[in-house]
Amino acid sequence: MSELPTIPSDLSLGEWLRGTGPDGDLAICTRVRFARNLLGYRFASLLDAEESRELSAYLVQQVGQLGLPEPLRVVELSTLTELEREVLVERHLISRELAAAERPRAAAHDDAERVALMFNEEDHLRSQVFRSGFQVDEAYAAAEDLDDRLISSLPVAFSEEFGFLTSCPTNVGTGLRLSVMLHLPGLVWAEDMEKAANTCQKIHLAVRGMYGEGSRALGDFYQVSNQVTLGRSETSLVDDVRVAVTQLIAWERKVREALLGGERRARTLDRVWRALGTLQSARILSTEECLNGLSAVRFGVQQGLIADLRAADLNRLLLLTQPAHLQRLHGAPLDAAERDTLRATLVRSVLAGRGQGA
Amino acid sequence: MSELPTIPSDLSLGEWLRGTGPDGDLAICTRVRFARNLLGYRFASLLDAEESRELSAYLVQQVGQLGLPEPLRVVELSTLTELEREVLVERHLISRELAAAERPRAAAHDDAERVALMFNEEDHLRSQVFRSGFQVDEAYAAAEDLDDRLISSLPVAFSEEFGFLTSCPTNVGTGLRLSVMLHLPGLVWAEDMEKAANTCQKIHLAVRGMYGEGSRALGDFYQVSNQVTLGRSETSLVDDVRVAVTQLIAWERKVREALLGGERRARTLDRVWRALGTLQSARILSTEECLNGLSAVRFGVQQGLIADLRAADLNRLLLLTQPAHLQRLHGAPLDAAERDTLRATLVRSVLAGRGQGA
Repeated sequence: MSELPTIPSDLSLGEWLRGTGPDGDLAICTRVRFARNLLGYRFASLLDAEESRELSAYLVQQVGQLGLPEPLRVVELSTLTELEREVLVERHLISRELAAAERPRAAAHDDAERVALMFNEEDHLRSQVFRSGFQVDEAYAAAEDLDDRLISSLPVAFSEEFGFLTSCPTNVGTGLRLSVMLHLPGLVWAEDMEKAANTCQKIHLAVRGMYGEGSRALGDFYQVSNQVTLGRSETSLVDDVRVAVTQLIAWERKVREALLGGERRARTLDRVWRALGTLQSARILSTEECLNGLSAVRFGVQQGLIADLRAADLNRLLLLTQPAHLQRLHGAPLDAAERDTLRATLVRSVLAGRGQGA
Repeated sequence: MSELPTIPSDLSLGEWLRGTGPDGDLAICTRVRFARNLLGYRFASLLDAEESRELSAYLVQQVGQLGLPEPLRVVELSTLTELEREVLVERHLISRELAAAERPRAAAHDDAERVALMFNEEDHLRSQVFRSGFQVDEAYAAAEDLDDRLISSLPVAFSEEFGFLTSCPTNVGTGLRLSVMLHLPGLVWAEDMEKAANTCQKIHLAVRGMYGEGSRALGDFYQVSNQVTLGRSETSLVDDVRVAVTQLIAWERKVREALLGGERRARTLDRVWRALGTLQSARILSTEECLNGLSAVRFGVQQGLIADLRAADLNRLLLLTQPAHLQRLHGAPLDAAERDTLRATLVRSVLAGRGQGA
């Protein structure tokens, strides 16, 4: 058996997994995204390669002159390997769509990964701001400040009738998406999650998995975001998400109490400790089983059941056990079976000997 | 000689689980049983209560005068609680059928649990001899010696045409059942067990679970025994079982090598270590999951994968986690949920901190 890999000491988690924000035990991260398009260019999907190159270069140059408070690192995606692009996806800095596209395109982000821009994605320009935990006002204020700087210096497509024009009609109007990523193992275990998701959908909020549209809700992580962008003010859209997330957090806390009380307590403890035992002993771990196991252990740490593990270690594992991060750690591409073995080895090395009851 | 029927309060394993015999890693125990009936009494199922009482008392008294090399402890089963009878079943000293019967009946066994007699079971008298591991000749010789003493001093029903007469026609003739209990996780994991069982059945051998007829093969334990008792000499029946078990042991060893070689090794290690991790961490453990987990860990210890666990500890757990033994340990009856919790606690306490790789 090769030596146990250890987590690189320089691994930064990025703002979305920092885990330091308000309600950070349940709310992983708040994200605000604006979709914008430039006058004088067709929408991104209609551009030819030369136009794409020109647009992307123009945006990179313009944004470089904005003098933003935090300097941005620009990444030309075509110069990266597929693996390097996947790492950016796993860090939520670019979308899967942008990573997979073949046209000239770019991205930019600051060192702390609180700001990320995508150039020539589905829309010409998408700006994102992240804040750890449940920080709707802070994230929205920062995103609006960034957006103000962008639209004041760029010829942005805006209609008096519809608002900001976007490639997909679902984003027309405000072009705003506010999303909060929540960790809701209690609702899942108590089989209340479907009801919770339905409730959100009734008030026009989307409930998605960890990697947005079409992704599965691995590890009991859910992103709650606004569906509507048109015909409402930005602040009322933000308020909708804030109210719903506040209710979901309260619901999750209440369910957790129930899961740890009375007759249900034994089954809940069993679930938490088995998950830790499996993570500490498995030699082969799929992404799905790993995330679900980490979810249960995270619940156990947060509820004070497991004394000698820190949520930060679990957040690190959450990111490092993703396929691209694993391969970057290894220094070379790995097939799925090799990844499952390395994932198990890594998880064991971090969790070895842990798990004293509180 | 007829002592108070007490259940041993120590945690001795009894011969069948001592684990010291030849091929003891795969062959748990060899057992030889003879079924005998007395002249002058109808078969047990036809006796009324008074006749049953008389027969049982007669047998207890006669056997007490035999002067056997190892003194026997006699147990009047109607004076025991249901739980105490279940303990004897779990130790293989009496059958489920004898434990559940309502008629006067008794049993006797020596301290080492190498000899066990049942009075007024399906047949008037059943004698059993146990030897640790794969010891067909030793077990058969000892059983024959015991049987010689019994039939020379008791009026046993014997027909020149059919041999020994028994309550059920399947035992007529020799009245012999030779069985070897095998631990065959390799064959089960490699999905060869069904084929192995079919092969045995073709040569008229029965393959049954840990507790004989009708019991499931929990924990990958299988009893292989002769089906035929009539028209064949005892030695040829014994030879059949010996040959088949020798082949099964060789098959199991070959399969284990394959499971631990090449591409299959990783999955096998994963299975062993996950089982240990689950046993070390679960807070609720059913009998079935416990036995299956112990089976995998036993495999790991025997194949030298797990260095700091002894097979004897696992054998103890195997017995102590059975429902009646658990309740005896607790000192009071427990419902199924309480047993599952106590079982998990017991297993954790024995396996805590164990599991260094070899």
